[in-house]
Amino acid sequence: MQEIKVGLAGLGHVGSAAVKILQANRSNFSRRLGSSISLSWVCDRHPGKKLKNLSLPKSVKVTTNYRDLIEDPRVDVLIELMGGVADARRAVLGALQAGKHVITANKRLLSQHWDEIFRAAERHRKLVYFEASVAGAIPILQAVQNSLAANEIQEVLGILNGTTNYILTRMIHDRMSFDAALRRAQELGFAEKDPTLDLNGSDTVHKLSILASLVTGLRVPPGRIHREGIAGIDLNDVLFAGGELGRTVRLLGILRLQRRGGKNFYEARVHPALIEQKHPLASVHDEYNAVLLKTSYAGDQMFYGKGAGAEPAASAVLGDLFMLAKAITAQKSANSNRMIWSGHGAAEIIPMAELECEFFLKFFAKDMPGILSRITGVLGRHGISISQIYQKFDKHPAGVPIVFVTHSAKEAAVQKAVAAITRLPHVASKSVCLRML
Amino acid sequence: MQEIKVGLAGLGHVGSAAVKILQANRSNFSRRLGSSISLSWVCDRHPGKKLKNLSLPKSVKVTTNYRDLIEDPRVDVLIELMGGVADARRAVLGALQAGKHVITANKRLLSQHWDEIFRAAERHRKLVYFEASVAGAIPILQAVQNSLAANEIQEVLGILNGTTNYILTRMIHDRMSFDAALRRAQELGFAEKDPTLDLNGSDTVHKLSILASLVTGLRVPPGRIHREGIAGIDLNDVLFAGGELGRTVRLLGILRLQRRGGKNFYEARVHPALIEQKHPLASVHDEYNAVLLKTSYAGDQMFYGKGAGAEPAASAVLGDLFMLAKAITAQKSANSNRMIWSGHGAAEIIPMAELECEFFLKFFAKDMPGILSRITGVLGRHGISISQIYQKFDKHPAGVPIVFVTHSAKEAAVQKAVAAITRLPHVASKSVCLRML
Repeated sequence: MQEIKVGLAGLGHVGSAAVKILQANRSNFSRRLGSSISLSWVCDRHPGKKLKNLSLPKSVKVTTNYRDLIEDPRVDVLIELMGGVADARRAVLGALQAGKHVITANKRLLSQHWDEIFRAAERHRKLVYFEASVAGAIPILQAVQNSLAANEIQEVLGILNGTTNYILTRMIHDRMSFDAALRRAQELGFAEKDPTLDLNGSDTVHKLSILASLVTGLRVPPGRIHREGIAGIDLNDVLFAGGELGRTVRLLGILRLQRRGGKNFYEARVHPALIEQKHPLASVHDEYNAVLLKTSYAGDQMFYGKGAGAEPAASAVLGDLFMLAKAITAQKSANSNRMIWSGHGAAEIIPMAELECEFFLKFFAKDMPGILSRITGVLGRHGISISQIYQKFDKHPAGVPIVFVTHSAKEAAVQKAVAAITRLPHVASKSVCLRML
Repeated sequence: MQEIKVGLAGLGHVGSAAVKILQANRSNFSRRLGSSISLSWVCDRHPGKKLKNLSLPKSVKVTTNYRDLIEDPRVDVLIELMGGVADARRAVLGALQAGKHVITANKRLLSQHWDEIFRAAERHRKLVYFEASVAGAIPILQAVQNSLAANEIQEVLGILNGTTNYILTRMIHDRMSFDAALRRAQELGFAEKDPTLDLNGSDTVHKLSILASLVTGLRVPPGRIHREGIAGIDLNDVLFAGGELGRTVRLLGILRLQRRGGKNFYEARVHPALIEQKHPLASVHDEYNAVLLKTSYAGDQMFYGKGAGAEPAASAVLGDLFMLAKAITAQKSANSNRMIWSGHGAAEIIPMAELECEFFLKFFAKDMPGILSRITGVLGRHGISISQIYQKFDKHPAGVPIVFVTHSAKEAAVQKAVAAITRLPHVASKSVCLRML
C-alpha cells in the first residue's frame, strides 16, 4: 500500500486539532483511499506544552525549524498552519520547490502572494489546496472550482468573517452596543485581543480576494477590493434599520459580474449592507458564515456553516489532505470507488417502531361527554404523555377534531394508541399523525 | 493534448441541456484541464426533433441504440440520462465492463442496484459519478465524500424533492388545498402528470438511500427506509401547525446515527415533519432543496439550491464530467493548478465610484427651519432621488438626526453629496452612509 507522508508546520489551535483529527482518521482514510497517510514531522517554534496534549507516536519527528520538513525528501505534503506571512511564504515556496504538495489555511499569504505561489506550483507541477482559507469548514472553494465548473458565477455574496457577524448579531438581537458586543466576542474567543483585521474588513477582503480569483479565473488582489469595516456601526442605526426599514445589517464580501461591451467587468467590495429580513443571508447568525452564489445554470446556491474555530478549520484541512491523497493515489490507479463501495455490507437500520419523537395527533369525535377522558386514558395506558390539547377547530363531517401534541413518545406505542383510539365508539376511524422534528 | 471522448445516452430535458452546456464549455474546460473533452456519440430512441434544437457538429455520431456507444472503444465516458431502470442498468454495467467511466443522474437505478454497479466499477477499476442523482445542482455528494471526509456525519436532514416542497409552500403561503397546489405544480412543470413517486415519498427514499449509503459507507437499501408521503396532508392541519404551534410542514429525508453498545445504528426515514419556523429548513421554499448535516468536527452545515430542473441537473452532470476528466488527466500529470492559475492576468475591477445602489444616509442638523430643504437640494443637484425621509430619532449631541433612504444612486454622486451636506452650516461633520443590498 502506498504511503503518503505529511509534514505539519504550526501547532496552534488549528494545527493541534488537525493532528488529533488526522490520527483519529488514519484507518478510515486508508480504507477509503487504498493508500495510507502518515504524519512524519510536526514543526512548531515552541512545541513543548503543545506536544503533551497530542500524545504522538514516537515515529513522528519534532522540530522547531520548518526547513527540516522541506529538506526531508520522504515528505510528500506540507501542511502550513504557521500563520503570518513572511515565514509561511518561505515554507510554502520551499516545499513546492522541493517537490512537495502544499495545503494551507493562510488567507493573508494566499491573497497577497497568489501569483508567486501558483506560478511555483505550476513550474514544479505540484498541487496547492486551501479550502480552510475561506469560510472555514464550508466547502465553497471545492464547489466553485469543481462541482459548478460548467457555470458562469455571476454573483458572490459572502458573510466571511465570524467575528463581525457575531458582533452584529449581538447588537441586533440583544441591543448591545458595538463596544459591549466586541467585549462579549472577546470573552467567548470569537474575537482576538487585537481584532483590527476583522473589524476593519481586511480579513473579509483577503477571503474575497481568494474566492474572486477562483471565480473569475483571473487575479483579484486585495488592494483592488473596496473595504469598509463595521467599527463605525451605531446601535441606533442597526435598530432603526430593523424597525422602520425591515432590514438587518451584515458585513458582506461582494463580487458581481457586469458585462460591458462583451467583456467581463467585476464589482469587488467589502462593506456593511442593509439586507431584507427575508434574504437568505439575514438568517445567518452569530459566528456562522455563508456564501450565496448566483450561477448561470445551477441557479442560486447557498452554503452555510461554521466559518471559524479550530475543529472546523482542521476539518477543511483534512478534507484537502484526503482529496490530495486521492489525486496522488489516482496517478497509480483510478480506483476511487473504494470509498463508495467497500463491500462491507448493509448498515444497521433501527426499526421505525423503536424511534421516539413528539407527535401531533388529531382525532374526530362525536361531541359527547367523557370522550376526551377516554382518549387521554388510552394515551396514558400506552405511556404517552400530553403536552398540549386543542379543541378549537370547526366541526368536521367526521366529528369534532381534537388535537394532541405529545411529549417525546415511542413510535410503536403511538401507532398502537392511535389504532386503539380510532376503534373507540364515537371516534372516527380517520385520524392524523404527524411527527415533530 | 489528451482528448476525453464522451457518449451521452438520453436526449430528454436533462440530456439536451447537458449537450448544450457541454458544447458551450469546451474551451473553458480544456483551458482548465489541460485536456479536451469531446462529444463523440449521442443516443436517443427518438432523436429526430431533439437534434434540431441542438445544432451538433457533424463529428458527433447519432444512434438509437446505446450499444453503439458501449462498443466504440474510443469512448472513455458514458453519460447515462436515459431514465427508467432496466435499459439504464444494462447500459451502465455494459459501459463499465467495456472499460468506460460512467456518469449518471438516475437515482432509482443507483438506489436499487447499488452493490451491483459499484462491484462492477471496482472489478473494472472505473469511476462512477452521480452528483445529479441527489438534490440536483447542490454538490452534496461531493461534500460528504470528500470535503467532509474527516468527519463522522451524525445527522442528515434533507428536503430532497422539489415537487412536494412546492406543494407544501403553496398550501402554507397561499392557503391552497393540496389538490389545488398539486394542479398549480403540474401547470408550472414542477410536478409530472403522474406525480405518484414524488407524492408518496419514493423519490425522496431513493435519494436518501444514496446519500445514506455514502454517509455510512454501508448499504442502506430503499426498502429499509420508512416511507410516508404528503398525499394525506390536510390544509387545516398545515394552517393549525403554523398558527397555534409555530411550526411549518416539510417532507424530510432523515438519517440519524445512534451509538448503541459501541456500534453504529441508524434511523432512516422519510415522512412529513412539523419543524419550528426558525429552523434553517423552514426557510426552504418552493421547488428548492436543502440538506442540513450535523458533523463531528465541521459543526452544522447547510447546502441550499435548485433540486430540480434540466439546467441544474445538467450543471451537476457536467461538474462530474469535469472532475472525472481531471481524475483521468491526473493519471498522466498532477498539474491541476492550471484551473487556479492561468497566467492570464488581472480581472477588470469596476471602480467603486461607478457602482449604484440604494443608500441609507443619516445627517445631524441643528433643528433650524430650512435645513431639510437645503439638504434635499444638495441631494437633488447630485441626481439623487429620495424614497423615504425619517426624523424620529431622539436628539443626539451632534444635532437632530435626519435619515434618508435613497433610490438607486451612483456611489460617486452620493459621496460628493455627503461631503457637500456635511459642509453646510448647521449640519454636523459626522454622518452615516450605509448601502442597501
